[in-house]
Amino acid sequence: MEKGQLLYEGKAKRLYTTDKEDILFVEYKDSATAFNGEKKAEIVGKGTLNNRITTLLFEKLKAEGIDSHFVEQLSDHEQLVKKVDIIQIEVVVRQIAAGSLAKRLGLEEGVQLARPIVEFYYKDDELGDPLITEEHIELLNLATPVEVKALYEKGLQVNEVLTRFFKEVGVILVDFKLEFGRDENGNVLLADEISPDTCRLWDEKTKQKLDKDVFRRDLGQLKDAYEIILSRLGGLTK
Amino acid sequence: MEKGQLLYEGKAKRLYTTDKEDILFVEYKDSATAFNGEKKAEIVGKGTLNNRITTLLFEKLKAEGIDSHFVEQLSDHEQLVKKVDIIQIEVVVRQIAAGSLAKRLGLEEGVQLARPIVEFYYKDDELGDPLITEEHIELLNLATPVEVKALYEKGLQVNEVLTRFFKEVGVILVDFKLEFGRDENGNVLLADEISPDTCRLWDEKTKQKLDKDVFRRDLGQLKDAYEIILSRLGGLTK
Ligand SMILES: Nc1ncnc2c1ncn2[C@@H]1O[C@H](COP(=O)(O)OP(=O)(O)O)[C@@H](O)[C@H]1O
Ligand SMILES: Nc1ncnc2c1ncn2[C@@H]1O[C@H](COP(=O)(O)OP(=O)(O)O)[C@@H](O)[C@H]1O
Ligand SMILES: [Mg+2]
Ligand SMILES: [Mg+2]
Repeated sequence: MEKGQLLYEGKAKRLYTTDKEDILFVEYKDSATAFNGEKKAEIVGKGTLNNRITTLLFEKLKAEGIDSHFVEQLSDHEQLVKKVDIIQIEVVVRQIAAGSLAKRLGLEEGVQLARPIVEFYYKDDELGDPLITEEHIELLNLATPVEVKALYEKGLQVNEVLTRFFKEVGVILVDFKLEFGRDENGNVLLADEISPDTCRLWDEKTKQKLDKDVFRRDLGQLKDAYEIILSRLGGLTK
Repeated sequence: MEKGQLLYEGKAKRLYTTDKEDILFVEYKDSATAFNGEKKAEIVGKGTLNNRITTLLFEKLKAEGIDSHFVEQLSDHEQLVKKVDIIQIEVVVRQIAAGSLAKRLGLEEGVQLARPIVEFYYKDDELGDPLITEEHIELLNLATPVEVKALYEKGLQVNEVLTRFFKEVGVILVDFKLEFGRDENGNVLLADEISPDTCRLWDEKTKQKLDKDVFRRDLGQLKDAYEIILSRLGGLTK
């Protein structure tokens, strides 16, 4: 597959066209960013780690019946995905209070929620990705009610599979962010990435943070944490 | 009715017990506050204006079949209300983008919404009254699903009546905040106040702001604006 022109450069990835209309080339960058881009660093190897972890997780989801845009891993830091029309909503699923939820509701980080909750954030860097309600989504015309229902249900499904998967390797899935898009038939398809950049992952025993909070809060080497995740997922032996 | 002991002093009102268990004495203060108490001033006459406007609006709602905690206006700055167990949710209804909605969604102030929207905020000064979703409400156990439905529907009902009422006197009801409580039977009852402190009100022709934004944004004399509202509502001739 030919790598065509650069379509979009984001904070963590570059998207390129390919010779197929409906397939994109994704290149994972070594950049780490936090706080809406205010904190930045280059971390050699991060792109490779996220590319491999995302690949493993999308494959796992696929095996459990949850489709995504993922087509194929091409190289250490590159993959092919189906092109979708990204829905400008970040779908966040949480099982334990942390980050902005803990702050918003005055909960202590680490408090187990009675059941998983799903939140929607408006994917808009300039506005700082604000929390939005279903009425805001309707108002901004970001998605139809049918799509919102799909986002909600797929969010919970992904949560179930990933929670089980991580639990098997001694990792607690605290919360995570998903992005979805519309495929060529208008169906809602899981897209973007699932990696320690987009999940909160804690070691089950030590509660050590194995995700981007290591970078956000200067808790150590981000690369070490991501390598632990890849290795737990069995990705280092591959 | 005897004014008993001070139960609670808030930013805008003082609550006292009375000789009846289920009735409270409310005293409207002359204090104006904004930005979660960061901006403050004493404005002589404000308490009287809000007491009278709230009285008129609760009476109007009553006449249209919407009950509230309001019992009786006692004096210029005092009224009697039914004691309720306040639900810690601020119910905001909006018809035009302004304030935090405009900021959150990147909308221009003044944009008409396709339909009225209802938002819930966690009534917690320390947390800055954050926007919350129905799942957050469940998580914090702030209200039951049945109560949430009542808050939503009553919010829209109040919006319909007040919009009509203000329109008749040349005022646009942009948005407003309501508080509700549980009465002695556990029913959801409209409470607190409805005044230019808790509504955005614009003159229909000139779009002049006739509400607390005059104070928040230093647009002139708050008292003049509130007097215009009271007078439009027919309250100065009373
Ligand atoms: N299958 C896809 N088709 C089209 N766009 C996608 C697809 N998957 C992800 N994207 C988008 O590509 C960009 C990925 O780059 P990223 O560096 O994560 O961007 P951002 O800085 O916006 O988070 C995001 O805008 C994401 O929504
Ligand atoms: N009928 C009622 N019974 C009990 N409490 C009430 C009733 N109506 C309003 N309240 C509460 O009384 C207080 C009113 O005072 P206010 O100065 O507006 O307080 P705040 O600074 O919390 O907004 C609020 O906490 C409000 O929720
Ligand atoms: Mg991204
Ligand atoms: Mg108040």
